[in-house]
Amino acid sequence: MRIAVLTETYPGEARVAATPDSVKALVKAGASVSVEKSAGLSASVTDAAFEAAGAKCVTRAAAIKDGQLFLTVRRPDAATLAKLPKGAVLVGLLDPHGDKDFAKACADAGINALAMEYTPRITRAQSMDALSSQSNLAGYRAVIEAAALYGRAFPMMMTAAGTVAAAKAFIMGAGVAGLQAIATARRLGAIVSANDVRPAAKEQVASLGAKFIAVEDEEFKAAETAGGYAKEMSADYKAKQAELVAAHIAKQDIVVTTALIPGRPAPRLITRAMVETMKPGSVIIDIAAGTGGNCELTKADEIVEHGGVKIAGFTNLPARLAADASQLLAKNFVNLAPLLRGEDGALSPQWEDEIIKGMTLTRDGAIVHPSLGG
Amino acid sequence: MRIAVLTETYPGEARVAATPDSVKALVKAGASVSVEKSAGLSASVTDAAFEAAGAKCVTRAAAIKDGQLFLTVRRPDAATLAKLPKGAVLVGLLDPHGDKDFAKACADAGINALAMEYTPRITRAQSMDALSSQSNLAGYRAVIEAAALYGRAFPMMMTAAGTVAAAKAFIMGAGVAGLQAIATARRLGAIVSANDVRPAAKEQVASLGAKFIAVEDEEFKAAETAGGYAKEMSADYKAKQAELVAAHIAKQDIVVTTALIPGRPAPRLITRAMVETMKPGSVIIDIAAGTGGNCELTKADEIVEHGGVKIAGFTNLPARLAADASQLLAKNFVNLAPLLRGEDGALSPQWEDEIIKGMTLTRDGAIVHPSLGG
Repeated sequence: MRIAVLTETYPGEARVAATPDSVKALVKAGASVSVEKSAGLSASVTDAAFEAAGAKCVTRAAAIKDGQLFLTVRRPDAATLAKLPKGAVLVGLLDPHGDKDFAKACADAGINALAMEYTPRITRAQSMDALSSQSNLAGYRAVIEAAALYGRAFPMMMTAAGTVAAAKAFIMGAGVAGLQAIATARRLGAIVSANDVRPAAKEQVASLGAKFIAVEDEEFKAAETAGGYAKEMSADYKAKQAELVAAHIAKQDIVVTTALIPGRPAPRLITRAMVETMKPGSVIIDIAAGTGGNCELTKADEIVEHGGVKIAGFTNLPARLAADASQLLAKNFVNLAPLLRGEDGALSPQWEDEIIKGMTLTRDGAIVHPSLGG
Repeated sequence: MRIAVLTETYPGEARVAATPDSVKALVKAGASVSVEKSAGLSASVTDAAFEAAGAKCVTRAAAIKDGQLFLTVRRPDAATLAKLPKGAVLVGLLDPHGDKDFAKACADAGINALAMEYTPRITRAQSMDALSSQSNLAGYRAVIEAAALYGRAFPMMMTAAGTVAAAKAFIMGAGVAGLQAIATARRLGAIVSANDVRPAAKEQVASLGAKFIAVEDEEFKAAETAGGYAKEMSADYKAKQAELVAAHIAKQDIVVTTALIPGRPAPRLITRAMVETMKPGSVIIDIAAGTGGNCELTKADEIVEHGGVKIAGFTNLPARLAADASQLLAKNFVNLAPLLRGEDGALSPQWEDEIIKGMTLTRDGAIVHPSLGG
């Protein structure tokens, strides 16, 4: 199995799909790994480190020509795609709904494309789940960005010149990113609250020392004990909850929104009117900026200021933590690799395996993924 | 006593010398306070908030014309100085050694200038000590900047895709800024070490959960128990200590240097050769960038990259935390105010008081501060 890792072409992408550790593991399992020269620099990995781990650092053309399995962080651009050898397997966070021509281009070029976003949510696949590994870091980074944009300190400080109050941080959504954001804001000394559409998230939020913001009526209590799966709440409940959240936001210094639905526009959680109730100097970090944003005023890759409130629309928070994000993603690939090779070690994806099946966008010239009409 | 607060003219300054809380306190004590319109905006204080606290928000010309006591964060520019009424008292972080013409200009204009940097280090003056209040925030902010520049996470994270190691942070200097940097890096989950020229700092560093880096020989042990005052160590000891520190830096991800000596160039702690031993992706935050830097490669107000190591030379970290920094500084002024007024509440600095005496740069047309040859 000849693996190739190219420099990312996606705008602003700083991650790389391999690290010295992952190269070592892949080589040990019998693969050869070619890495495009300088591909790791933006993630603080030198060519020397890749070569010491057993990779060959080569030109882009050489890596493309020789590769069978292409590991990538994001969707390569059309020019790269056109050059990949027919029959090549391409695996990465391909976000096929972000470019409607992508899947067809892969199919036409005879490239078998596997999207890490569709890793099934099953126990066996957890160690391959790139959305999870990257969301975790996005949650951490969101709070670091908030602390950098905020003109005050997070922790309470008692000084000879008086006391600095602790920041109030509200994390909207208690998924992987939200839970890490809660933990990080707590570490930094903020007073943290959080919400989630799943009443069952209350326990997890509380276990991290944050306050769960919810209208705790009979309907909530019934849903809370019904288990981890989301239950559609009544329209009446949703209205009461929205009112509570709006009142809560007005008192916050920091809001981090994490409601991201892969392949679909982000739900609107914060309106312009709600921003206008916030104090000057407050900060909103919108993790969903890449798919329209959870806040009405979010602009992708901009920091908007509205009435003194900063609204940050970073579309790629993991890339702002490129070294660690690359490390975890590369590990996801290493964990996936056994499903991509045959018993003889040659490239031979186990197309019928539930995990590979779930991820496959295109195969042998055809679009096969259900979400793409395959 | 008619107090005036102007918009700062110093490049990049975002702080303001008053806040609604300080205005309230000053007005309660019988003063009137004029604030230049929009002076607080960069520190997230609106004119409305100033007015609700009892200030008048006026034009710059009106504030200057009517003022007797001018509170300022930094040295005003020459144009402003030329307009201040004769006999006015100017108090702020005036850094008179940063502009050799400043003190003379004040004396020539008949302005009585008091520099907060020279607040005596006595118990009674602690609550007026602006260097201390601002250094505290600089130490916090230095670590936030480090976390934002670092391509990895600070805390150890155990995930389904493997473990992310905790960052190693080394804080050079355990004064007010250094201790807050230690506390903040610890909060964020880093493995923290620190050093200081004072062996007695070991205990404070250890009490914050950080490791003290020092050659702990007989000389060190004798100095450690000799109390808090710096004792000049032998040349032999210094050489051994420098060797230990150099070896330690090579293993660090984050280094924060805090060796700042007011009015004098910063001591050189990190050479180019030492930077070159560090891993790509490491970050140095040089708090002393404004006075030449503790690191040989530091450039003021730039982020230099050398062999993959980022060296950040922020010259005004408190201004990057403008709201809190203004709050503490304004409180320092409130605490100083009783020494600036007579029994009738009128402006009448107690020139013979030890604190006022220590701070006075110019009085009645003459340069009087010993550090300026007065």
